[in-house]
Amino acid sequence: MTAAALVLGVGPKQGLGAALARRFAAEGLAVFVAGRSPAKLASVAADIADSGGTAIPVVADATVEADVRRLFEKIGESGRPLAVAAYNVDSNLRAPLLETDLDMFTALWRQNSLGAFLFGREAVRQMLPNRKGTLIFTGATASLRARPPFTAFSAAKAAVRALTQGMAREFGPQGIHVVHAVIDGVIDGDRARSQFPQFVAAKGDDGMLLPEAIAETYWHLHCQHPSAWSHEIDLRPFKETF
Amino acid sequence: MTAAALVLGVGPKQGLGAALARRFAAEGLAVFVAGRSPAKLASVAADIADSGGTAIPVVADATVEADVRRLFEKIGESGRPLAVAAYNVDSNLRAPLLETDLDMFTALWRQNSLGAFLFGREAVRQMLPNRKGTLIFTGATASLRARPPFTAFSAAKAAVRALTQGMAREFGPQGIHVVHAVIDGVIDGDRARSQFPQFVAAKGDDGMLLPEAIAETYWHLHCQHPSAWSHEIDLRPFKETF
Amino acid sequence: MTAAALVLGVGPKQGLGAALARRFAAEGLAVFVAGRSPAKLASVAADIADSGGTAIPVVADATVEADVRRLFEKIGESGRPLAVAAYNVDSNLRAPLLETDLDMFTALWRQNSLGAFLFGREAVRQMLPNRKGTLIFTGATASLRARPPFTAFSAAKAAVRALTQGMAREFGPQGIHVVHAVIDGVIDGDRARSQFPQFVAAKGDDGMLLPEAIAETYWHLHCQHPSAWSHEIDLRPFKETF
Amino acid sequence: MTAAALVLGVGPKQGLGAALARRFAAEGLAVFVAGRSPAKLASVAADIADSGGTAIPVVADATVEADVRRLFEKIGESGRPLAVAAYNVDSNLRAPLLETDLDMFTALWRQNSLGAFLFGREAVRQMLPNRKGTLIFTGATASLRARPPFTAFSAAKAAVRALTQGMAREFGPQGIHVVHAVIDGVIDGDRARSQFPQFVAAKGDDGMLLPEAIAETYWHLHCQHPSAWSHEIDLRPFKETF
Repeated sequence: MTAAALVLGVGPKQGLGAALARRFAAEGLAVFVAGRSPAKLASVAADIADSGGTAIPVVADATVEADVRRLFEKIGESGRPLAVAAYNVDSNLRAPLLETDLDMFTALWRQNSLGAFLFGREAVRQMLPNRKGTLIFTGATASLRARPPFTAFSAAKAAVRALTQGMAREFGPQGIHVVHAVIDGVIDGDRARSQFPQFVAAKGDDGMLLPEAIAETYWHLHCQHPSAWSHEIDLRPFKETF
Repeated sequence: MTAAALVLGVGPKQGLGAALARRFAAEGLAVFVAGRSPAKLASVAADIADSGGTAIPVVADATVEADVRRLFEKIGESGRPLAVAAYNVDSNLRAPLLETDLDMFTALWRQNSLGAFLFGREAVRQMLPNRKGTLIFTGATASLRARPPFTAFSAAKAAVRALTQGMAREFGPQGIHVVHAVIDGVIDGDRARSQFPQFVAAKGDDGMLLPEAIAETYWHLHCQHPSAWSHEIDLRPFKETF
Repeated sequence: MTAAALVLGVGPKQGLGAALARRFAAEGLAVFVAGRSPAKLASVAADIADSGGTAIPVVADATVEADVRRLFEKIGESGRPLAVAAYNVDSNLRAPLLETDLDMFTALWRQNSLGAFLFGREAVRQMLPNRKGTLIFTGATASLRARPPFTAFSAAKAAVRALTQGMAREFGPQGIHVVHAVIDGVIDGDRARSQFPQFVAAKGDDGMLLPEAIAETYWHLHCQHPSAWSHEIDLRPFKETF
Repeated sequence: MTAAALVLGVGPKQGLGAALARRFAAEGLAVFVAGRSPAKLASVAADIADSGGTAIPVVADATVEADVRRLFEKIGESGRPLAVAAYNVDSNLRAPLLETDLDMFTALWRQNSLGAFLFGREAVRQMLPNRKGTLIFTGATASLRARPPFTAFSAAKAAVRALTQGMAREFGPQGIHVVHAVIDGVIDGDRARSQFPQFVAAKGDDGMLLPEAIAETYWHLHCQHPSAWSHEIDLRPFKETF
């Protein structure tokens, strides 16, 4: 039976989650596409099926432990070994510190940090018996540097980075490849084009990260030989100031 | 009226919180000593009073928003300008990732990250009208590097570091001095001596951080001239491998 | 006419330089293989020719400005656009600081830092008219953390890292992709196997970086779409403690 | 006999070198003031003598091994134990990479990195028999982040940072306290005021680092108790964007 892939955090077709799912499916993996919106998952899965691939939509909230457990149980019940799993939940909110309330601070932590922890722990549990598997976390530059008005977001993303580093150190020698991808810039897609049209126009060609380009690097990371694994990589448009 | 200082996270007399309170009191500041144990706060406050200083114990749980707000209200009601405030809650737990449960992950975040956020936000609110004040957060090397079995702890501490960096950038130009102190090593005290006696013996003289020595540097940081402020500093025993 | 590739720092057939040259030749690029030993260059070039590829050996000392200039002149005279160039000179010496003499400190700087500067400057000069090209520098973990007895080596490698970062920021928006690859571990090859046989045996399978595995990632980096370029990536054996 | 201090890199009276010398002299240390300009050294030494302190001018070029050795021999011949020594040579040049020539690249390395190495090695040699002493290196933000047109300068400063880190790890456990001070901003003084008057005016009060303020922190670092030493500290004006 072919192996499985998982993308947790799949939204619109134009987004990174969908691009990752398509990329994994194109390699013949059966892809579990997971997220909160049944309609979006169905649409992405249908696309993959139309292209001759296999996609299994699973509605799951990454911040709810029971959901994450159930998601991995489904993968386990499929009998397919889990080859690669991507945590792609990226929840960003901006606010000056004095306007950051408890709910916002908590929500950013839940969606970025807590979800990454639940996902990482359950994925490792599933992969360890095979002593094989790749985990990739979509991170952000904010994990390395905190600037207002993204202080609370940075706190959440810095925690993700720490999580992945500790996991890489704990499980790498047991065959689990854990990667933190630092996305530096804006990902091209409907959200950016509808929310910041002027920004998008000013960026020009290749001024935003194409989801397919990111997916290509994720796939390469999964294919790396165990003698030369990467744990951290940055990805940014060539025009991006950094 | 003399100015006020605050230490949130005061426990036993031999701990860092108590040493910070004594150091601030020795400079003539009225020190609000805050923490969860009324008995410990009373003991530290009594010591300070015996030495001719002023200490006001306030029972508060750093992870409870209402407690933190009430704490700062008390300081405000005292009419004393808040000169320096230290966040000294340091909650550490060790566990392999697969034995880290939701409660532990959440508790580490609450005590380290959430508490630092609530404290920082309220402290800035109180200090901004004066455009003056120092905030020091007791951090850990885990904020910079995550290693098992401290992955969840590192995630929490990395978030604290990001928080302080974002706050320094947002409020420094408004006169608020925000410092992240990276404590690298074990702080000398009853906890270390009772929990790891062999470790303590092996470390030898000055092999653990003396609370008074840390307090001396915190005081220096508070005294820095605005033309040459530090945002981050590491502190470790001279023998410590790093 | 097909495009050119360059590897500066090609030694024995089993080394990383040779593997990079073979990888680039396998993609149809005409590869300039440059280094100090005519015999080694000839051997690597002959291998590539035997496999149907094109390799042009150029004797050059990376630390001598005139040599580096002449090397790039040759590439220019070939009429081939330079698509990708790798700086692969890696000179390491270990010594306690008090036993580090002026010659050793200077030699490490010349071979690592000065050579990287000369190479980078001339490569950019050649690539800028096309607004296209990839530069990859073989770096080391020592660029991030200095530990005795590798202090002088670290100083040299930290300078390389800074160089590549400044170059990426200056030339990325002009189409030149500059990458710093942090090699963390020992590269498999004759040198390691003859110099540290016990170390090699202790590492076991995939305990050292295979040159071919590194070359695969270098090739991927060259192929990255301009909307999602990496500037820094680490590479280490899955068993490596980090 | 009172102990000695050393500042290598003493220029005009308004500069940081002079301020460090005055600060150390004010504590009763006999200060060796070293640099390339006899006139400037004499002026700084005369000031210190006028204030009742002891200053010994020594003409020395930090990039010349024989000069550095002779400097430490003089200190040794004085019979005074060397308590604290600061490397304060800061040579900065700006240039786009393509306009950076071999001489400039080499000069920046010599004055920043090579000088720091020679100074550090000889200072450690002098201090080790006492198992005591503090070494402080004046560093720059460029040591952490390289940006054009300061790429070559960054390479030189990153090497200094690595040097100090390796030294701290090697000699800390033997009682030598090695500190890297990251100066982030422009130091107030004649140079800034004459070269960039508009910049200075725009910065406003406390917008540049006062040499005396930096000196205060250097003195604190020297006084730190061995149980709580700092290895790295940043210093910047409160208004500085970072």
